[in-house]
Amino acid sequence: MYFPGLEGVVVKETKICHIDLENSKIYYRGYDLEELAERSTFEETAYLLWHGNLPRRSELEEFRRSLAQHRIPPSHVKDLLLRAPRAAEPIDVLRTAVSAMAFGEDLRDKSPQVELARGLKITGAMPYIVAAFDRSRRGLGPAEPAEAGSHAEFFLWALRGERPSPREARALDVMLIIYAEHSMNNSAFTAVTVASTLADMYAAVTAAIASLKGPLHGGANVDASLMLEEVGDAKNVERWVEEQLAKGRRIPGFGHRLYKRGPDPRLRVLRRLARDLAAERGDYRWVELAERLEEYVTAKLSQKGIYPNTDLYAAVIFRYLGLPVDVNLPVFAMSRVAGWVAHVVEYRQANRLIRPTERYTGPVGLRYVPVEERG
Amino acid sequence: MYFPGLEGVVVKETKICHIDLENSKIYYRGYDLEELAERSTFEETAYLLWHGNLPRRSELEEFRRSLAQHRIPPSHVKDLLLRAPRAAEPIDVLRTAVSAMAFGEDLRDKSPQVELARGLKITGAMPYIVAAFDRSRRGLGPAEPAEAGSHAEFFLWALRGERPSPREARALDVMLIIYAEHSMNNSAFTAVTVASTLADMYAAVTAAIASLKGPLHGGANVDASLMLEEVGDAKNVERWVEEQLAKGRRIPGFGHRLYKRGPDPRLRVLRRLARDLAAERGDYRWVELAERLEEYVTAKLSQKGIYPNTDLYAAVIFRYLGLPVDVNLPVFAMSRVAGWVAHVVEYRQANRLIRPTERYTGPVGLRYVPVEERG
Repeated sequence: MYFPGLEGVVVKETKICHIDLENSKIYYRGYDLEELAERSTFEETAYLLWHGNLPRRSELEEFRRSLAQHRIPPSHVKDLLLRAPRAAEPIDVLRTAVSAMAFGEDLRDKSPQVELARGLKITGAMPYIVAAFDRSRRGLGPAEPAEAGSHAEFFLWALRGERPSPREARALDVMLIIYAEHSMNNSAFTAVTVASTLADMYAAVTAAIASLKGPLHGGANVDASLMLEEVGDAKNVERWVEEQLAKGRRIPGFGHRLYKRGPDPRLRVLRRLARDLAAERGDYRWVELAERLEEYVTAKLSQKGIYPNTDLYAAVIFRYLGLPVDVNLPVFAMSRVAGWVAHVVEYRQANRLIRPTERYTGPVGLRYVPVEERG
Repeated sequence: MYFPGLEGVVVKETKICHIDLENSKIYYRGYDLEELAERSTFEETAYLLWHGNLPRRSELEEFRRSLAQHRIPPSHVKDLLLRAPRAAEPIDVLRTAVSAMAFGEDLRDKSPQVELARGLKITGAMPYIVAAFDRSRRGLGPAEPAEAGSHAEFFLWALRGERPSPREARALDVMLIIYAEHSMNNSAFTAVTVASTLADMYAAVTAAIASLKGPLHGGANVDASLMLEEVGDAKNVERWVEEQLAKGRRIPGFGHRLYKRGPDPRLRVLRRLARDLAAERGDYRWVELAERLEEYVTAKLSQKGIYPNTDLYAAVIFRYLGLPVDVNLPVFAMSRVAGWVAHVVEYRQANRLIRPTERYTGPVGLRYVPVEERG
């Protein structure tokens, strides 16, 4: 049976994430994502996604410690970051560095504990990888803030070379929670497909990063950020949107295959975060621009099932955090890796090689003519 | 609808490869693979797979020239090869190096011509990557034989540092034809899944290499080679096989999800190649061992749908070519890249984001308890 895009094809059963479109709710392991965003941390959320339950205090402390121990990657990976050409795209450098993390490790054991330990190493090292390459292309050496607390704080500190404010660190922490998992999207499916061959966690995550890059997946987030810059101010929204629509163009930050009956539940959290950061900086330009876009475009297009998606406010938050536009996508990967690892481990519990089929519509039995006789 | 392993799910229509199980035939673009193995070259076969037709003489010459121009990868990739730890697995180094080939290129254009040009660059550079890392871990500098003719000859020369015999080069050339494509296997599907996000060819091929590594896909080929060594001689076959079966173990080099009614059609070609190389070397040990295994195991297990697969004779050929066991898999990738690139370009003609679904079986609405209260 032919299923274009595999739409509607159930590829696995899961206990990881539930998206309740009816009630506009997302659950990680049964917990309301909005509650996790308010009360949990990225570290705790990753533990929850991987192990299926919230950690006890000692488990959480141990998990945090292990993750922090793997912040600085092996020297051949550091080398690779410093030697990558400046013009390389950060997401490609991240993919390559995660791939290189496999070097030298004995990779035969695919038991859940060992694969989770690899997932932890990868997750732990990703912030440094992203930060160090960004600094390297700016002509700066890596920053290795030993005093940094949370995963999120470490990243901002390692990127800037100076300590972020608590509010900034927490804003990124919440972003990492919010994007950590979203059911069978293309990158999670890619991770599972690769893992179904019993290739190791490095292989699965490398492939997932490759997928995330695509403009029809994570790669579109840049467009929302560029749009904010292009529109420039809330007062230009109406004219700009009308121009886009007249030209038959899509509006970045709007529309999603799943959310056609109302906006993505994550939006509420992200809007609030964007407001908080604006208040701290005393600069409301980007958040007000996004709010005006949300209001205007929703009024115009919601009857067609088009609502704002998370890219709209993520772009605002990334701007307030001062991230270069092309670093947004690697930050998305730093978060989503938690979901990828969870899916790989879950799928392996009843692993079956993923091998769909295709329908042949070409000729057979053509006669091979030597090149001299082909005219 | 739930389809474990996606078995029987048609994910795309194709004109690339047809496997005719009834008549034990494989066709590339309508041409009988056995005829291509006898009369074509890897370069011509890659052209055929990518463009859908056999090249005219001038087109073939141009294609060969372009491929040869990309044999030596950019300096940051060479760097990476020389700096990779010796203990790294060659397939992981290949995956990482292909990923790094993306650095510095403008990757926005996804038109078929541009993506095919990327496919050509990747395909062209893979032999050097595999050879140079293998030499590096043996403490040798890279060999860059400017006089090498075919893609296959270049690889063996770059690996050994000396010219292979014409028969050896041709044997590898035929191997590269034989493995270039095999319909919707896991790695081709991974490439298509990643490409469906409109991620670029480097991303798609990197992910495909990640998939190929898995022991349920390409990664099993090593087992057949290790088995030859373990059995050691044709006269030990009976005892060894009986021991394995008594222990309930699988016999490497036998069994395939598709070929349950008769052996893989590629086997005939590979057996002949193995014989040719044995004759040139005057050393029949490995081929006779494989033939004895084929005979004995087929007699025992064919009524259960278990026949020899291509790994059996591929292992023999790789041994006669003097390849290290863990280089077999990267050689497989050097060949299969032709199919991956063809599938990516074909799928994009009517691209649709691949996004299956999953069935949630976990709880919802669990109450978040702060860590202090978790006991």
